[in-house]
Amino acid sequence: MRIVVVGGDAAGMSAAHSALRQARAAGREVEVEVVEATGHTSYSACGIPYWIADDVEEGADLVARTAEEHRAAGIRLRLHTRATAIDPAGRTVTVEGADPEGATDTIRYDELVLATGARPVVPDWARGPDGALLDGVHPVKTLDDGALWRDLLARAETAAAAEGRPPRAVIVGGGYIGVEMAETLVRRRFSTTLVTRSRVMGRLDEDLGARVAEALALGGVDLRTDTAVDRLVSADGEVRGRVRGVVTTDGRHVPADVVVLALGVEPATDLGRAAGLPLGTEGGYLPDGAGRLAPGVWAAGDCCEQAHRITGHRTFLPLGTHANKQGRAVGAALLGGDLRFPGAVGTAITRFVAGGEHVEVARTGLGTEEAVEAGYDVASLVTEGTTASGYMPEAAPLAIKVLADRADRRLLGVQIVGGPGAGKRIDAAAAALWGSMSVDDLAWMDLSYAPPFATAWEVLQVAARRLAERL
Amino acid sequence: MRIVVVGGDAAGMSAAHSALRQARAAGREVEVEVVEATGHTSYSACGIPYWIADDVEEGADLVARTAEEHRAAGIRLRLHTRATAIDPAGRTVTVEGADPEGATDTIRYDELVLATGARPVVPDWARGPDGALLDGVHPVKTLDDGALWRDLLARAETAAAAEGRPPRAVIVGGGYIGVEMAETLVRRRFSTTLVTRSRVMGRLDEDLGARVAEALALGGVDLRTDTAVDRLVSADGEVRGRVRGVVTTDGRHVPADVVVLALGVEPATDLGRAAGLPLGTEGGYLPDGAGRLAPGVWAAGDCCEQAHRITGHRTFLPLGTHANKQGRAVGAALLGGDLRFPGAVGTAITRFVAGGEHVEVARTGLGTEEAVEAGYDVASLVTEGTTASGYMPEAAPLAIKVLADRADRRLLGVQIVGGPGAGKRIDAAAAALWGSMSVDDLAWMDLSYAPPFATAWEVLQVAARRLAERL
Repeated sequence: MRIVVVGGDAAGMSAAHSALRQARAAGREVEVEVVEATGHTSYSACGIPYWIADDVEEGADLVARTAEEHRAAGIRLRLHTRATAIDPAGRTVTVEGADPEGATDTIRYDELVLATGARPVVPDWARGPDGALLDGVHPVKTLDDGALWRDLLARAETAAAAEGRPPRAVIVGGGYIGVEMAETLVRRRFSTTLVTRSRVMGRLDEDLGARVAEALALGGVDLRTDTAVDRLVSADGEVRGRVRGVVTTDGRHVPADVVVLALGVEPATDLGRAAGLPLGTEGGYLPDGAGRLAPGVWAAGDCCEQAHRITGHRTFLPLGTHANKQGRAVGAALLGGDLRFPGAVGTAITRFVAGGEHVEVARTGLGTEEAVEAGYDVASLVTEGTTASGYMPEAAPLAIKVLADRADRRLLGVQIVGGPGAGKRIDAAAAALWGSMSVDDLAWMDLSYAPPFATAWEVLQVAARRLAERL
Repeated sequence: MRIVVVGGDAAGMSAAHSALRQARAAGREVEVEVVEATGHTSYSACGIPYWIADDVEEGADLVARTAEEHRAAGIRLRLHTRATAIDPAGRTVTVEGADPEGATDTIRYDELVLATGARPVVPDWARGPDGALLDGVHPVKTLDDGALWRDLLARAETAAAAEGRPPRAVIVGGGYIGVEMAETLVRRRFSTTLVTRSRVMGRLDEDLGARVAEALALGGVDLRTDTAVDRLVSADGEVRGRVRGVVTTDGRHVPADVVVLALGVEPATDLGRAAGLPLGTEGGYLPDGAGRLAPGVWAAGDCCEQAHRITGHRTFLPLGTHANKQGRAVGAALLGGDLRFPGAVGTAITRFVAGGEHVEVARTGLGTEEAVEAGYDVASLVTEGTTASGYMPEAAPLAIKVLADRADRRLLGVQIVGGPGAGKRIDAAAAALWGSMSVDDLAWMDLSYAPPFATAWEVLQVAARRLAERL
């Protein structure tokens, strides 16, 4: 039996190893081959901003398992090899290798796993007439992007120092990557502007998102919300050469040595689209409960839309932790194992720690807009408190928003913005959502208390209790 | 209607305010009177070690609400007044006031709330022939104890400095207070010995407890486990005057300027015992689901044994956070409200941060011994990992033990020992236990991930997954 996996990052490699384990446990002989377009496997894309910020010494540290380690575990691995077509009827994948340049090959499979991930959204204004990105303008997605960014920032720093001014960066996009790159750039002492069409942290409700925006501003980020980019300006006014600045739709010019494209990602599903596989409203694959797309074809990771456990709808929630879990489940399922990825509830966390600010941001479940759209009668409340007992030096302020359904008191979502120790509190709420618990359960459950860690009534529970009292 | 509350700390004052709120909401006229033996109300006993360690500026900072604030809210409050007897049939409480000295009074009630808390265990060897504690030997329980400890340590520091040696402390008891006072004393540069009859952190399984012991030892605490105190030695060899040292049952002499009694607490239930109210196996009151002990008599807080949601048995789990919740529920219930304290799952957290060590300790649910005793077929596993992605500077080691029932895969308990950020992870497990979830739920649920906060597979979930694979 021959299993081919397209994509050698979190989902793909998890699937490959899981299939090997499952086969071994079942005493079956399988051959697992992974095709990966870049030269890297199993790396942490989420760690790239911290590598650029010098928290991480080298890109290799972000690699969880190297190609050699995968091969040693019995996986055939073709690096620098791009899958260009799949034929689900004939059960083949066409690939194009780098060496010899552009040589194509057709690989036969019994079971195929599509784990092609997501790719950054790149707007037209970022490209020159030749379609290439302008010099100094780039997304933050792959390990190669990370290496490029380290070079770009070093070059900008040198050039700015020569001119006796701080280096300048514009980040376009106010989501997770935008906020993380803002931390990176402020910590590297870039004069940093963040431009976003709407607001910062659109995955939070507006009231909580405003707290993140405030921390960014206090940390030194020049925020331009409700603002889009009209065009880039490059050396000599030409749309070639190095970028020099951004012109926003309100006609203002923002000088920049570098421009970070942080406009989100979209599922990389060209292979399936060309083969006629059905795609969801957000362009992702729609695997069934076991991870299957079609006979002999499976999918896992950021190229998929996932089952949201609260709404029951499919949602695009690209995240390494889901990709790992989905890959593990699919790798076992395609050999008849009974692991199933049970869906997600939309948990996410990030931080902005720079310029004297430390803000942690977390969310789980549905935001108000999502919940209303899904038909819930939403009640919500923001509660302020501290991460430790107020008299402790560790005590940092935090704000928690809890959302519940007026109809049945069921918890719908929680959002947290606060100082050190605030963010990971989201996990108790995520667990409560996982168990379809009520806001009363969250208010009265037995969460941990000691002065360095919480107030005697943990703020998450005060927040739930206050909302429960108003339902 | 006249409500009398005996005890003005967490449970009692919560009950008093809750009753007032409930009465107001129901449009009823009630009089609420609280009788408190000390001069303090609503203070954080848990914060006392941090006050002694100088993290907290003054004792008043530990007071959540002062007597004046309670009175302003409409509560009658008698401080320095001890309840000496209750008469459930006649619905009266006899009290003895401080001013005029020892004057007694009989208070009539319609509903009585016993919130007398717990008192420290004081062994015979700690007392002189007159029954009084030896000078320099004291428990850590009340705000007055805290003030005394600050004086005792200052005196010991001065005396030791005069003799050109470090001040010396012996802590007797290796539970939460023992570990917290070890932090306090090491941070105040006391040469610190901890003597315990069994081992450190007996509420953890032995393997996890050993990690705490290791941190204490590395932090400079001289540990004497499996060792009991035989007697104290005081100035001039007499069992009077200042303590000079401890003689352990193995015949060794440990010099000490102060001796901390950290041997646990027991429910303070003399009033009820004398009145013939039934008590549990651990000596605590046994309120029903609404908090009622007998017609017109209710109880809340550390004087009670609580319903354990996993075993269904009553357990003595003295903790401010439970006391607050129980008080709130009872105060409403005695006026016909429908709040109920829903029980606990045994969650607790603490830390030892001193001498260059930072270890956080947390547990929830049942330990192995408890679980076996309760009849479960226990499977468990210890998993090691890091609190953040391994490549991040924040990454600190942690160990997580997960316990599950082989019969139905239900999660039974979780224990965590690790560096900064390890402890509060327990809350996700506590929420899972609250919802009677399985070890598979914990393994696959949607917990938060980003490199500064977790590994892509959160360790708590790796721990659950590994155990799930072995069930």
